[in-house]
Amino acid sequence: MYCSIMISGGGSTQTPYFSKSINRQKSELLFFLWLPFSFYVQFQSLDYDNIENQLFLEEERRMSYLGFRCLEISRWVVCGWIGFLTGLIACFIDIAVEELAGFKYQVVKENIEKFTEVGGLSISLLLWAVLNAAIVMVGAIIVAYFEPIAAGSGIPQIKCYLNGIKIPRVVRLKTLVVKVCGVICSVVGGLAVGKEGPMIHSGAVVAAGVSQGRSTSLKKDFKIFEYFRRDTEKRDFVSAGAAAGVSAAFGAPVGGVLFSLEEGASFWNQMLTWRIFFASMISTFTLNFFLSIYHKNTGDLSSPGLINFGRFEGDSVAYNLYEIPLFILMGAIGGLLGALFNILNYWLTIFRIRYVHRPCLQVMEAMLVAAVTATVSFTMIYFSNDCQPLGPEHAEEYPLQLFCADGEYNSMATAFFNTPERSVRSLFHNQAGTYNPLTLGLFTLTYFFLACWTYGLAVSAGVFIPSLLIGAAWGRLFGILLAYITPNSVSKWADPGKYALIGAAAQLGGIVRMTLSLTVIMVEATGNVTYGFPIMLVLMTAKIVGDYIVEGLYDIHIKLQSVPFLHWEAPATSHWLTAREVMSSPVTCLNRIEKVGTIVDTLSNTSTKHNGFPVVVQPAKLCGLILRSQLIVLLKHKVFVELARSRLTHRKLQLKDFRDAYPRFPPIQSIHVSQDERECMMDLTEFMNPTPYTVPQETSLPRVFKLFRALGLRHLVVVDDENRVVGLVTRKDLARYHLGKHGLEELQLAQT
Amino acid sequence: MYCSIMISGGGSTQTPYFSKSINRQKSELLFFLWLPFSFYVQFQSLDYDNIENQLFLEEERRMSYLGFRCLEISRWVVCGWIGFLTGLIACFIDIAVEELAGFKYQVVKENIEKFTEVGGLSISLLLWAVLNAAIVMVGAIIVAYFEPIAAGSGIPQIKCYLNGIKIPRVVRLKTLVVKVCGVICSVVGGLAVGKEGPMIHSGAVVAAGVSQGRSTSLKKDFKIFEYFRRDTEKRDFVSAGAAAGVSAAFGAPVGGVLFSLEEGASFWNQMLTWRIFFASMISTFTLNFFLSIYHKNTGDLSSPGLINFGRFEGDSVAYNLYEIPLFILMGAIGGLLGALFNILNYWLTIFRIRYVHRPCLQVMEAMLVAAVTATVSFTMIYFSNDCQPLGPEHAEEYPLQLFCADGEYNSMATAFFNTPERSVRSLFHNQAGTYNPLTLGLFTLTYFFLACWTYGLAVSAGVFIPSLLIGAAWGRLFGILLAYITPNSVSKWADPGKYALIGAAAQLGGIVRMTLSLTVIMVEATGNVTYGFPIMLVLMTAKIVGDYIVEGLYDIHIKLQSVPFLHWEAPATSHWLTAREVMSSPVTCLNRIEKVGTIVDTLSNTSTKHNGFPVVVQPAKLCGLILRSQLIVLLKHKVFVELARSRLTHRKLQLKDFRDAYPRFPPIQSIHVSQDERECMMDLTEFMNPTPYTVPQETSLPRVFKLFRALGLRHLVVVDDENRVVGLVTRKDLARYHLGKHGLEELQLAQT
Repeated sequence: MYCSIMISGGGSTQTPYFSKSINRQKSELLFFLWLPFSFYVQFQSLDYDNIENQLFLEEERRMSYLGFRCLEISRWVVCGWIGFLTGLIACFIDIAVEELAGFKYQVVKENIEKFTEVGGLSISLLLWAVLNAAIVMVGAIIVAYFEPIAAGSGIPQIKCYLNGIKIPRVVRLKTLVVKVCGVICSVVGGLAVGKEGPMIHSGAVVAAGVSQGRSTSLKKDFKIFEYFRRDTEKRDFVSAGAAAGVSAAFGAPVGGVLFSLEEGASFWNQMLTWRIFFASMISTFTLNFFLSIYHKNTGDLSSPGLINFGRFEGDSVAYNLYEIPLFILMGAIGGLLGALFNILNYWLTIFRIRYVHRPCLQVMEAMLVAAVTATVSFTMIYFSNDCQPLGPEHAEEYPLQLFCADGEYNSMATAFFNTPERSVRSLFHNQAGTYNPLTLGLFTLTYFFLACWTYGLAVSAGVFIPSLLIGAAWGRLFGILLAYITPNSVSKWADPGKYALIGAAAQLGGIVRMTLSLTVIMVEATGNVTYGFPIMLVLMTAKIVGDYIVEGLYDIHIKLQSVPFLHWEAPATSHWLTAREVMSSPVTCLNRIEKVGTIVDTLSNTSTKHNGFPVVVQPAKLCGLILRSQLIVLLKHKVFVELARSRLTHRKLQLKDFRDAYPRFPPIQSIHVSQDERECMMDLTEFMNPTPYTVPQETSLPRVFKLFRALGLRHLVVVDDENRVVGLVTRKDLARYHLGKHGLEELQLAQT
Repeated sequence: MYCSIMISGGGSTQTPYFSKSINRQKSELLFFLWLPFSFYVQFQSLDYDNIENQLFLEEERRMSYLGFRCLEISRWVVCGWIGFLTGLIACFIDIAVEELAGFKYQVVKENIEKFTEVGGLSISLLLWAVLNAAIVMVGAIIVAYFEPIAAGSGIPQIKCYLNGIKIPRVVRLKTLVVKVCGVICSVVGGLAVGKEGPMIHSGAVVAAGVSQGRSTSLKKDFKIFEYFRRDTEKRDFVSAGAAAGVSAAFGAPVGGVLFSLEEGASFWNQMLTWRIFFASMISTFTLNFFLSIYHKNTGDLSSPGLINFGRFEGDSVAYNLYEIPLFILMGAIGGLLGALFNILNYWLTIFRIRYVHRPCLQVMEAMLVAAVTATVSFTMIYFSNDCQPLGPEHAEEYPLQLFCADGEYNSMATAFFNTPERSVRSLFHNQAGTYNPLTLGLFTLTYFFLACWTYGLAVSAGVFIPSLLIGAAWGRLFGILLAYITPNSVSKWADPGKYALIGAAAQLGGIVRMTLSLTVIMVEATGNVTYGFPIMLVLMTAKIVGDYIVEGLYDIHIKLQSVPFLHWEAPATSHWLTAREVMSSPVTCLNRIEKVGTIVDTLSNTSTKHNGFPVVVQPAKLCGLILRSQLIVLLKHKVFVELARSRLTHRKLQLKDFRDAYPRFPPIQSIHVSQDERECMMDLTEFMNPTPYTVPQETSLPRVFKLFRALGLRHLVVVDDENRVVGLVTRKDLARYHLGKHGLEELQLAQT
């Protein structure tokens, strides 16, 4: 299904688990068809291995114990700020959506009420559709024209970032602004989207910004936290930010931590986790505090209204042993529906990559979807004759009477004429009998396709809430049918709200395939731990069933970006591959004292695919590793041996110079080196990492993989018995291998 | 405070953060005083790095994709069994304690009631004290005489195991049996102990047993799961077992997973975590299912009675912004009291190591503590005149009337005349006004010292519940005082149950210093997520305050065992140390083809402190690494070059032979090698790990440390530029360095 290219050569006796390349041409063709339109083919790896050169070590050695304590305290302060700001942003999004959507629904509702009496509801439809399309247009324009990276939920991008892939512009301030405005427009515009995914991305951007103590976009440097200006530290903070985002989105601090760990952690560290948890907690706390002010019960931090999906309490939470098989069945259904969703969305994305890649087309598509969503919703509400009595306990904010009798409301409207989050809440908590089965069935069907069409549009939007909504709808339907089959025990156990929750979990699990973190998020978002076991069972079943058919939605989108994403473990059957076979060779090495001209030529040479260069002393003995970015800083500051001699007063290059340039190192083309200077020499000793990780040539792929994954490496030097460089393994060399249906396959990845 | 020896040499200019050895003599003296009595000075490291020799690789390469799938499925099956069996054991302990304690309290209660009327309550006291002492005696005898490793909670031992230290007999069947019987005796015997810690240890033993598909103690080999017979796989299962134990103990599956990760994980893997979670869930599920049968509402898995500390619901859970400072204050109190507890227990343990190390003394001490506990409890109850009306809603199973009026009961007795777990529950959930402040104050005081005295006795017992109980008591007292100070708003916010919970968290946090996992355990055990934020704040404060004074209880006990425990990160100020300085040198190397005599001599030499030997080809070029255990298997099977030539039909040594010997490799002394055989040669090529991890001599300590911690290494070969072996870094070389009050200190560790 994916555009992977089977390896054909290599001898089948030595490589018993490589399938013969049967359909190589076909898949190659398909691959190259869409490659040029791939989202972002430029990426760099992040350096999660510490740059341990002499400058760095000197600084560390100079630092006293107290200095380290201060650093530790700064980390906590930064995490606190990350949590606070993420909470504030989430609060802003929440309130803006609430107010604007409230205003929109009020306008439309009044209009509908007016025309229900006098006739001519088509005008209401037109008003609704135009209103939606207009709002969505704003959101789509800022995304498509100003910051395309802000499209979608941002979760695949954050996953990539935490995995060690640097996607350009993903954690910039501009992205944040576009993301926040975009998501407000999308949700208010009535699309089948949620605001949760973008909150996670927002948290990550906040973290990347705060932790660096400066904003490159705003050209403002606060001169603080300079120590954190390197990839390892920044990554840690970004995971805290993502956790804070989850925490704010779902009120799930523990879930947030687990999300970060599932997606990002390569090495678990107690203090780091604890800091991440702190950020998450502060984020929920901030959000709850400000929302409690907004809801006018200031300071009451445990108000049930702050739990996203309403609190499940009392008898409705009971479940019994004989319900377990039913839950598992629902999990399987969720897995199947999720896989269907993913396949449809995959083909749609391929279509979009090929035909809808111009910004104006993207905006038009988004507007079309908005208009269609409004029209479909209106039609469904219009033709529904499911009227329910309007009780005082109902939570619907905008009950539509339409053709119902006085004191009744249209039940279909609670699902369609509402923000998706409220709809989920209604499905979870409204009493048995609030919805009739037909309403739910039709709703599931239409919303499924709408959500599938919506995900991947050029708007900021998440897929969590739509998935939950679809699942809650069919889950509730399932519960109602159960009650129908076993009428005499209905009041006892087949509470439709409970089945709505299980269905929601199943559907979401079937689409995104998250595991532990999702269980905890669901538990925290419903405020009740009793459902932990059934939710886990359901998610597990959904994942197993779904994985059998197709990958998770995020993984599909990551794959479509063809970035070198490293999974948890090397493919199972890859033990027969060794470093010798996977490494890039020959590798460009530099001498410890190298001519400037050679360095400039090496960096300018576009065929040099890697960003790390082994430094050798003759004859080819490895003595260090230096990064492209470091060389560029050296060139920029003209750290040449000859100049140092002539200008004795010349300031020595410091770690600060590297930090100031981080993370936007200029390209080599922008650095001017005169012909004279080309003849100078550069001494790399001080700046290279003198102890790079190395492996012998015979090391097996899983062992190399484990080193990469556990230490967050991006370059691993392969040496022979004599410590001579024979090759270099990069992320891309490892990410190529992939376990497909026919055994081990080699993937084609985007060129750097 | 700890027996650490400062480094005096080294030159203070080069080593600026080493303090001068002011009190070297004193600490050395103290150290050697107790060293001979140290709990277990014999330990080995576990090999968490894969043994990747040719045999292993060949097997992996032979295995098909399907084979790997089967393995994966086996792992799930094993985890399911671990969860199930752990749940069963927990259930057994629960019910046994319930029934036996019920019987005991019933007998004592009837006796007290009898003698309250006729006078002569001293007979009741005698009965109670003798009953307790007798029961505890049984528990202490089996522990002290049969399996001393089963003493205590087992958590320090499990922490060590997961960290990579092999403590003899810690995961054996016999240990499990003694542990289970021991903990039942301790709890029924009325000691101030909990059954939770031992459950965690039990889970770990179950895991170690089930995953190996055999029991060495029972001499029964099921010939299954042979693939899992190595340290890496076993460790993963043991972490699942520990998680299942936590999950069963507290009804906290997520908390269990986090506990395992906090204590054991070096490298986070999504599938592994998910399996651990599965085991935890199955464990809770099993326990709940059987308990629901026991409680006679079969199959109702969500009954609130299954939540350990009762469910906090409704209004009592509300908290407000202005309570946050109060919570932080309570955290600080908890930290101080916890530190006091730890210091007292530390001195007590030192005393015990020196004077109470004979089994009979240990049994007598345990009996003494049991009798004293009974006497103190009786005295407190006797002199208490806090009578409370006996309402129908009260949960006390054994209300003691004593000198109270009819229809009233003695309030002190709910705390003392009960299993500690029930007492905690009463303190959390009894209505305001159930206890008077004096009762609570006296109870806190006495129970604090009783619990402190009890921990470290030669009985199986945990410290979780006593800590919670102490905290709940002073927390409730705190709440009552608050209500007293602000009488007009009492009904609104100062719910004593809430403060009892916060106090319990603070006290437990102050003693054990766990972080994320404890927060989640507390949240799950009380069935409510709203308290997440305050509990986190409280635990954080308790940890910060406590860590300032002394380490956590488990860390103290680990330190007293002087095992090479690796913490999360290298000490902050250790950047100036390099591999050259920390490595052991010279190192015993073996040739690739080595004389049997040399190998036997090397292994027999007691001064050879390490268990891994670099294999070299002349001149000293590293070509592999072989473990002591592997050499022993080779010697046992007489895999000599000469024999292989003469007996061509001789079966080739297989991976199976190593697995069969695992984990109890015979000592070298038990292997007979004749004088002729000593002259034979052994070819190590096939059996050594051909690609051991290496580092150059200049690698900094933090970098070496990270490699060890992230990859779970136990040997790291230090090589020079020419790939020649110059030294070997082992766990112990790293664990020596420790950041003390005066900078970096070097610890003395037990000899292998």
